[in-house]
Amino acid sequence: MSLLLGLYSAPSLGLGSARTACATSRAHACMQQQQQPGPPYAGPRSTPLLDTVSTPNDLKGFSLAELKQLSHELRWETINAVSKTGGHLGSSLGVVELTVALHYVFNTPADPVIWDVSHQVYPHKILTGRRERMPTLRQAGGLSGFAKRSESEYDAFGAGHSTTSISAALGMAVAHELRGLDQERTSVAVIGDGAITGGMAYEAMNNAAYLNSRIVVIYNDNGQVSLPTGTPSAGGTVPAGSLSAYTSRLIASKPFQDFRDIAKSINRLFPSEIQQANAKIDEYARGMVSGGTLFEELGFYYIGPVDGHDLDNLVPILENIRDRGGKQPVLLHIKTDKGKGYPPAEAASDKYHGVPKFEVATGKKLTAPAKTPSYTSVFADSLIDLAAADRSVVAITAAMPGGTGVDKFGKRFPKRTFDVGIAEQHAVTFAAGLAVEGIKPFCAIYSTFLQRAYDQLIHDVAIQKLPVRFILDRAGLVGNDGPTHHGSFDLAYIGCIPGIALCAPSDEVELRNMMRTIYEVDDKPTALRYPRGSALGLDVLNDLFEYGLDEYPARGKALPLGKGRVVRGAREDVSSRVAILSLGTRLAESVLAARAIEGAHADVGVTVADARWMKPLDTALVARLAEEHDVLITVEEGSIGGFGDHVLHYLSLGGFLDEGTLKARPMVLPDKYIEAGSMGEQYEEAGLSQRFIEATALRLLGKPVSMGSSSLADEEPTIA
Amino acid sequence: MSLLLGLYSAPSLGLGSARTACATSRAHACMQQQQQPGPPYAGPRSTPLLDTVSTPNDLKGFSLAELKQLSHELRWETINAVSKTGGHLGSSLGVVELTVALHYVFNTPADPVIWDVSHQVYPHKILTGRRERMPTLRQAGGLSGFAKRSESEYDAFGAGHSTTSISAALGMAVAHELRGLDQERTSVAVIGDGAITGGMAYEAMNNAAYLNSRIVVIYNDNGQVSLPTGTPSAGGTVPAGSLSAYTSRLIASKPFQDFRDIAKSINRLFPSEIQQANAKIDEYARGMVSGGTLFEELGFYYIGPVDGHDLDNLVPILENIRDRGGKQPVLLHIKTDKGKGYPPAEAASDKYHGVPKFEVATGKKLTAPAKTPSYTSVFADSLIDLAAADRSVVAITAAMPGGTGVDKFGKRFPKRTFDVGIAEQHAVTFAAGLAVEGIKPFCAIYSTFLQRAYDQLIHDVAIQKLPVRFILDRAGLVGNDGPTHHGSFDLAYIGCIPGIALCAPSDEVELRNMMRTIYEVDDKPTALRYPRGSALGLDVLNDLFEYGLDEYPARGKALPLGKGRVVRGAREDVSSRVAILSLGTRLAESVLAARAIEGAHADVGVTVADARWMKPLDTALVARLAEEHDVLITVEEGSIGGFGDHVLHYLSLGGFLDEGTLKARPMVLPDKYIEAGSMGEQYEEAGLSQRFIEATALRLLGKPVSMGSSSLADEEPTIA
Repeated sequence: MSLLLGLYSAPSLGLGSARTACATSRAHACMQQQQQPGPPYAGPRSTPLLDTVSTPNDLKGFSLAELKQLSHELRWETINAVSKTGGHLGSSLGVVELTVALHYVFNTPADPVIWDVSHQVYPHKILTGRRERMPTLRQAGGLSGFAKRSESEYDAFGAGHSTTSISAALGMAVAHELRGLDQERTSVAVIGDGAITGGMAYEAMNNAAYLNSRIVVIYNDNGQVSLPTGTPSAGGTVPAGSLSAYTSRLIASKPFQDFRDIAKSINRLFPSEIQQANAKIDEYARGMVSGGTLFEELGFYYIGPVDGHDLDNLVPILENIRDRGGKQPVLLHIKTDKGKGYPPAEAASDKYHGVPKFEVATGKKLTAPAKTPSYTSVFADSLIDLAAADRSVVAITAAMPGGTGVDKFGKRFPKRTFDVGIAEQHAVTFAAGLAVEGIKPFCAIYSTFLQRAYDQLIHDVAIQKLPVRFILDRAGLVGNDGPTHHGSFDLAYIGCIPGIALCAPSDEVELRNMMRTIYEVDDKPTALRYPRGSALGLDVLNDLFEYGLDEYPARGKALPLGKGRVVRGAREDVSSRVAILSLGTRLAESVLAARAIEGAHADVGVTVADARWMKPLDTALVARLAEEHDVLITVEEGSIGGFGDHVLHYLSLGGFLDEGTLKARPMVLPDKYIEAGSMGEQYEEAGLSQRFIEATALRLLGKPVSMGSSSLADEEPTIA
Repeated sequence: MSLLLGLYSAPSLGLGSARTACATSRAHACMQQQQQPGPPYAGPRSTPLLDTVSTPNDLKGFSLAELKQLSHELRWETINAVSKTGGHLGSSLGVVELTVALHYVFNTPADPVIWDVSHQVYPHKILTGRRERMPTLRQAGGLSGFAKRSESEYDAFGAGHSTTSISAALGMAVAHELRGLDQERTSVAVIGDGAITGGMAYEAMNNAAYLNSRIVVIYNDNGQVSLPTGTPSAGGTVPAGSLSAYTSRLIASKPFQDFRDIAKSINRLFPSEIQQANAKIDEYARGMVSGGTLFEELGFYYIGPVDGHDLDNLVPILENIRDRGGKQPVLLHIKTDKGKGYPPAEAASDKYHGVPKFEVATGKKLTAPAKTPSYTSVFADSLIDLAAADRSVVAITAAMPGGTGVDKFGKRFPKRTFDVGIAEQHAVTFAAGLAVEGIKPFCAIYSTFLQRAYDQLIHDVAIQKLPVRFILDRAGLVGNDGPTHHGSFDLAYIGCIPGIALCAPSDEVELRNMMRTIYEVDDKPTALRYPRGSALGLDVLNDLFEYGLDEYPARGKALPLGKGRVVRGAREDVSSRVAILSLGTRLAESVLAARAIEGAHADVGVTVADARWMKPLDTALVARLAEEHDVLITVEEGSIGGFGDHVLHYLSLGGFLDEGTLKARPMVLPDKYIEAGSMGEQYEEAGLSQRFIEATALRLLGKPVSMGSSSLADEEPTIA
């Protein structure tokens, strides 16, 4: 015990216990933060070793020196590739050495390596036969920005959302055992300090220990999150020094394990209470050395922390892990630097987490400033306005302060800002608890991530009629992140819940008004969903909707709950009348379609209405549109089962479709996963741009259809 | 250190580290297990102290002796009440003393007490003004079987599903601070050893420690689950002896805390590394004494384990916790016995978790045996059949082996049965990992609980097209458990997901066939949903559907994917033709309605079809029904946005509703929460029984409507 305590007192081991759950960044919490220009960067400019690697098999004979050189080249290649496409750079740079080491040590793809979130897989893609396709990264028809099973056998499990890797690795390991195949295979999950705050990681680790399954979890601690794990602070204050690296090698080595085995054999001769006591002492002693008590408590054999950029230590430790006997799951804690090796990234506060195209030498980002505000910023500004006048307004984010705009709110109202970590379930029920006490929580979670807290939304909020305000950013199609990130389903999955009010603004002024509206709703939950990206801007608002605004209104005004609006009356005295009823930001396309139709067909009048609310549905508006038109088209940025189908439901029950006086058509997202591309490309593929709306109306009127092109400009690809 | 190690070696502290996550029961995993008759039970038969308590305020002046007597009477009262209604008895009996102690020590309702799952709140209800209403427990119009905010101000937060209490308690505590109110309030969460395996508990504890919020978590360890927490085995082998009770009192006491405060002050004079080391030693030392290292790692001040039935210790410990300074969250670990104090419950393997009415003296359950198999058992038998012929078939449950029927499968195939604990998120992604490797996972999760893994269903399974088979028991309305447990939303929330196949059997033979069918689907995920309770039985099958069966078929046969069936042709040569298209077990009501209509109206013919699949929808069948009938009614056991609306969507796009030749009507669950009652009562309230189907058709035909009564008998109320 004294030796261990002696070791323990060595400050270089860094045993500070950081118990904070304030995630400061996350996959896709990409704030395009102020750029800190670093010194000019010059990469290797040639990649002789990398050029010899077309699959991981090609690096099996490399020496450690060659692995280091390969890492150097791979880092350069990654920087160079992302500079031309934009993408998730920082995390990829942080795992260059780990990627090389994993493919060197393990027998991929037979040994599955599962990258959590998987935005850090660019070096992995380059090493696994996809180097030539890197210029297509995140583009339509190109490489996914994430691991994707259909793209490569080396992508053992796809991702995009976080905290799934341990469960998947465990499933694969158990399957391997069930199939009675050779026992040498190892399933590896690589999970970051952000992702491991998700409760699913705890569920999976519990189960892994119970099943005593041969999996390896690489806990990639890159200092972006202050962790609640009792491990050394991830804040970067404690270096992964040489002594701890030595200790980790010692613990992972075969002789040390043999020693433990002998000790265990002897231990078995003692009565069970003493056995338990001895086991506990062993565990505490190792925990004191290594700082991994939480993981030990969860049943893992903990090794670390290890410098994740130091191949001299990383490779032999991984080899020891690979060659170990027994089946206890292992957690290897490595410390890495996000943005490692690229000075502009290292100097930036966001470590170039997600970047647009940039100039390699300087890191200068090549992106035009947005001409119009983003919906996200309009939300943030609106919430700040509301909070300035009402101290009960608070904001909650699940590790996405930048992506959701809650960071901006937090600067103004730090005590009323709650970043709960990657923990959507907790975020929602925590909000419910706040609402019980009269606080007005705005729970800002992307549409796709609210899927993580669906039951809490129903069980804790809606059934109890608690006035939690859900803010769903990135609703609809999201562009380059692709299928895992689309906010396609919220209208269906929220629309079916009794007692919730659900709205979608058609533009940024409406968003401000709806913020004010849901702020005032105190007797039930509300949900407000809006898309990624830039709002329309005053010019478009004035042109399409005749707002007559010189500047944006300073404040929002409350709208009547469950009431829509007609934004464009149909031309009078025509033989055919069409109504387009839109929910959300397709309203602009709808107005353009209406203009085009009336412009081309003098006998047709087109009314355009903005439903504003999916729930409660403005049934009076729907009835009026149904009664006064021959055709009623609904348009939404959502899947089947959503707004249009709720309208059909009402029309059907109301008998509006019984007499053959109305042709109704829902226009929704197609029933498939739309791959990465720009949002404009995706809505074209979805058939939800102006020309499709126009064509739908004309076909129903029996008019000739010529498919023009959509007239609202497409956006630049951006990092969500 | 030596004193602590000396204490530590005392075997009565029970420091065995149990690292298993095999939950063996759960709220509502209620198996009606074989009854073990105990000795005749005689309660106090009179309740003089309880009679003086109409609110918790009435027990503030009680002595410890009186609190014990009150507990004795309260236990009797609980047993007596549940014997007349049925309900969740075992867990309620386990917390009688805790309930008394909490209301005695804390200032309820100002101090909110949040009961996790909250099936254990019967003693709490009796003490908080609802004693007289206990005979209405879980009945239509009566007391809820759970905590319910609308029922009492003492029910601080409603529940039904598990693992929400810590998040809610934290929200209330933070709200209290935000409002700047007096700081003496304490938020208390009571969570069991089953519920704490859910990842949301870990998320909430992380966040509680970060926020340093004044909450108290009572970890009620009743030995029903072997826990992965590194705490003493919850298996009941380690008694919460007098020494550990003494230790806990010591740790919770003011002097001990003062000592720690002084130590902390001195510690601040040292350099930070040494401070950290000292803190770590303190923490480990306390962990060694108390066995609560996991909770300490998560940032809680751990106290325990304490005998939760020993008011002599429990009351002063709670008082110390109430009166402590500082804001670090506290976890009090108590050990209780489920079913405590009622010999028949103590002797039963399920501890009378959920029971029908019973005879108090003997514990004899007063329930008639079911005449027909339950859907659950048909699922289990079908899966066993499939697994017997294919070793790749496995079953997964999230701590619901009894409720889902996976226990039956597990007896036959223990190595292919995975109970992952209350961890639906992990369950689904674990299944995805298995499916990657060619294993055929059947993931059996109640419809309402699959809401907990919605994102995993989309992100890990559906987008990757992995052939996980989801088995959703308790779909539709569920009876006495009420709103928190209805499986109302699955058709909407799954139906919107691309690439998943979703079916619902209309009867038990169909269920067997669909099991075979989804077993054979290897290129995409499938979901099969069916209701709680008893299947129809051969007599009904032969009568309504003309099956002509002498006995149930031994095995299922595969059905064509996405194809429905016509079960009853309309009478020929009529002036009006009605089609009823049902998904799920409302088919029987539909046939009865058809018969009634044809019986009463000679000019009407009624076709009845079984859609079988919501997705892919049998569009050919829908088209045929639309073309050949004047009226098309869809019927389902689900919310808006589900099957009927998908049918309307197709009808609309196909132009079937354009000409005034078809009146279509969806019959779905109403857009409200249907309270507890029998399933029959609930479907009547929902307007989805025979007479409503009949009336809908007749109204559309312009015929007179007389609302008869539904002809399928209602079931006995049961415990889910």
